[in-house]
Amino acid sequence: MATVKLWTDEEVSANPRIRKVFDDIRSTRKSDFVNNFWRALANQPALLERTWASIKEVMIAPGELDPLTKELIYIAVSTANSCSYCVLSHTAAARAKGLTDQQHAEFLAVVGMAGETNALATALQIPVDPEFSVE
Amino acid sequence: MATVKLWTDEEVSANPRIRKVFDDIRSTRKSDFVNNFWRALANQPALLERTWASIKEVMIAPGELDPLTKELIYIAVSTANSCSYCVLSHTAAARAKGLTDQQHAEFLAVVGMAGETNALATALQIPVDPEFSVE
Amino acid sequence: MATVKLWTDEEVSANPRIRKVFDDIRSTRKSDFVNNFWRALANQPALLERTWASIKEVMIAPGELDPLTKELIYIAVSTANSCSYCVLSHTAAARAKGLTDQQHAEFLAVVGMAGETNALATALQIPVDPEFSVE
Amino acid sequence: MATVKLWTDEEVSANPRIRKVFDDIRSTRKSDFVNNFWRALANQPALLERTWASIKEVMIAPGELDPLTKELIYIAVSTANSCSYCVLSHTAAARAKGLTDQQHAEFLAVVGMAGETNALATALQIPVDPEFSVE
Amino acid sequence: MATVKLWTDEEVSANPRIRKVFDDIRSTRKSDFVNNFWRALANQPALLERTWASIKEVMIAPGELDPLTKELIYIAVSTANSCSYCVLSHTAAARAKGLTDQQHAEFLAVVGMAGETNALATALQIPVDPEFSVE
Amino acid sequence: MATVKLWTDEEVSANPRIRKVFDDIRSTRKSDFVNNFWRALANQPALLERTWASIKEVMIAPGELDPLTKELIYIAVSTANSCSYCVLSHTAAARAKGLTDQQHAEFLAVVGMAGETNALATALQIPVDPEFSVE
Repeated sequence: MATVKLWTDEEVSANPRIRKVFDDIRSTRKSDFVNNFWRALANQPALLERTWASIKEVMIAPGELDPLTKELIYIAVSTANSCSYCVLSHTAAARAKGLTDQQHAEFLAVVGMAGETNALATALQIPVDPEFSVE
Repeated sequence: MATVKLWTDEEVSANPRIRKVFDDIRSTRKSDFVNNFWRALANQPALLERTWASIKEVMIAPGELDPLTKELIYIAVSTANSCSYCVLSHTAAARAKGLTDQQHAEFLAVVGMAGETNALATALQIPVDPEFSVE
Repeated sequence: MATVKLWTDEEVSANPRIRKVFDDIRSTRKSDFVNNFWRALANQPALLERTWASIKEVMIAPGELDPLTKELIYIAVSTANSCSYCVLSHTAAARAKGLTDQQHAEFLAVVGMAGETNALATALQIPVDPEFSVE
Repeated sequence: MATVKLWTDEEVSANPRIRKVFDDIRSTRKSDFVNNFWRALANQPALLERTWASIKEVMIAPGELDPLTKELIYIAVSTANSCSYCVLSHTAAARAKGLTDQQHAEFLAVVGMAGETNALATALQIPVDPEFSVE
Repeated sequence: MATVKLWTDEEVSANPRIRKVFDDIRSTRKSDFVNNFWRALANQPALLERTWASIKEVMIAPGELDPLTKELIYIAVSTANSCSYCVLSHTAAARAKGLTDQQHAEFLAVVGMAGETNALATALQIPVDPEFSVE
Repeated sequence: MATVKLWTDEEVSANPRIRKVFDDIRSTRKSDFVNNFWRALANQPALLERTWASIKEVMIAPGELDPLTKELIYIAVSTANSCSYCVLSHTAAARAKGLTDQQHAEFLAVVGMAGETNALATALQIPVDPEFSVE
């Protein structure tokens, strides 16, 4: 149950501003499938445009980190934030970008260790070592 | 202000069980520096041993994900969990493993985007697309 | 799947202590609908009474912040806490109090920006500017 | 750096409404020390009164769970919510109520395991077993 | 919808490494029921073995905290981390270990108070009282 | 202790790309003060530009929600995300935009109630009422 309606392809087609973003999503991703995240954001054209432009720049444009590493970072944040939709959509995206079962297993181990040691460090309120300074 | 006392090198030296773990930390990391996280865990020998064994297996033993990628996943979780100590210690570790300023910049952009879209997806309560199924 | 049973109207009617709270919920809200949150709390009469009294005082009694602003603050916290039930119930409440689609769109944009910059500030561990002091 | 000013004993003494709550905190806890949490809430008399009344009822009044168990539950939530002040103040309270080093060590182990398995369960998006139903 | 497949009893039986862990889960818990958490972890044998060994040591082996108290601490963390699966599975486990409705009611009251005061302490950014120091 | 260096005014002045953003921050806010958040982001020019453009559009440009309401929503998210820097900087911003002590008191009460009922709803795993549907 969403808090907004999800736009169908028919509704998108009838609205040039929204259609332009959906067309760019489809051509950039080379896939006809547009997931519900964008169908929900379609209710807020300015937010849809800004979010897609940022995702394109951050997650898709080439850079120093490879696309699969970026997806793993994304899933890590989404896991700690308990965002089910985000975990499912970006795990699917990571698999589409070549994530193997063995890599996923290691990813899970790291995410689990971070969850454990985060809890320990917070419960212990450990003072920061001066050695960590960047200066 | 920690919730437990931090063990000094003198105290560690006087306790064979704790010293054994600290010796392994030092030889595994090839560094004499042992950060406060382990000095706090020294109050709980079983937890210290188990946590170090897990960290060694998960973060240090060779695998399919390279060590720097694991650090970035770790910092991503720690950021979303608001663990200051963890963010600072693992960002320092990532830099020691070769993280460049440009890679850090891209990492921050991904972490920021994930934080934004996690909030949007949760506020929108977007239903999961059946296309994300692994089956 | 709840961790407690949900009380039906028949069960509520048969219990004077619970019925008294439900009657007050109905008359205060001018609606016969009592949502599942209260049907779950009915298992804990003291907690039910205390929670309803607080909600009435904080969310419904007139004050300096208007009721719709309070709902938006509530949804913002619920989003960051990943509480699906709370997001859905309070977004419905906000709409009932007049939230427009355009206001919801702006709310989403703010919540998203906060999610992004929270992640950035935490990953950067930015020191607090002395200018923020209230003294 | 707080977002409100902290009330000194002199300021509290000069305000009968606030002084009444502080007097009750002191006599209930059998200690002259009133920590900063209450000195910050003193800016909001209604919130101060309601919060203290709830704390007294929930944390101090006798019930089915003993006071030390309640403190551990409190610290567990505070750890997962990354509330430094809450972790420090309630760990101090737990020690005052008899928490031993060994119990604290076990508490930390449980909190760490929960942090780890929470992350795993969320990253795996495990479907709920029907066996967990209370019905 | 999980991000990995869940292993059936047939698949477990056909894999000696996984079967060994499942056999130990069944004999340790004196129950034939193995919940989905372990069926998901079965995809990662090393993580399955390490996680089960830790759970056994932390949650099941006798210690200073009784098993029911440990479950309540676990649910408290899981609640603050918004892990639905964890809340449901460990509330069921707590009931199996004797949690009464009245104890659950008090647990809920404590978890709620912690949630409230965590939010207040963070919004107020209360400075830590030196009296909380363990030294 | 930040994970990156903070840019001084001299360093900003020497870099046209960064200076352009800082000039716009100063003229838009009609204040010479530029807080550390932007001095940290200055290490990542693209992220600095994109974040400032978004903040300007979302938080400063006129819309359906007034600027003070937006700040309260922002602080609410930051509180639940335990971002100290964000709570302090945006509470200062809210006061600069006219937040009164009484409004702040009510804000705190709402944030506290949300924290409490979020915890209760999650611990109870309350099923969503069909009445909340937007359709």
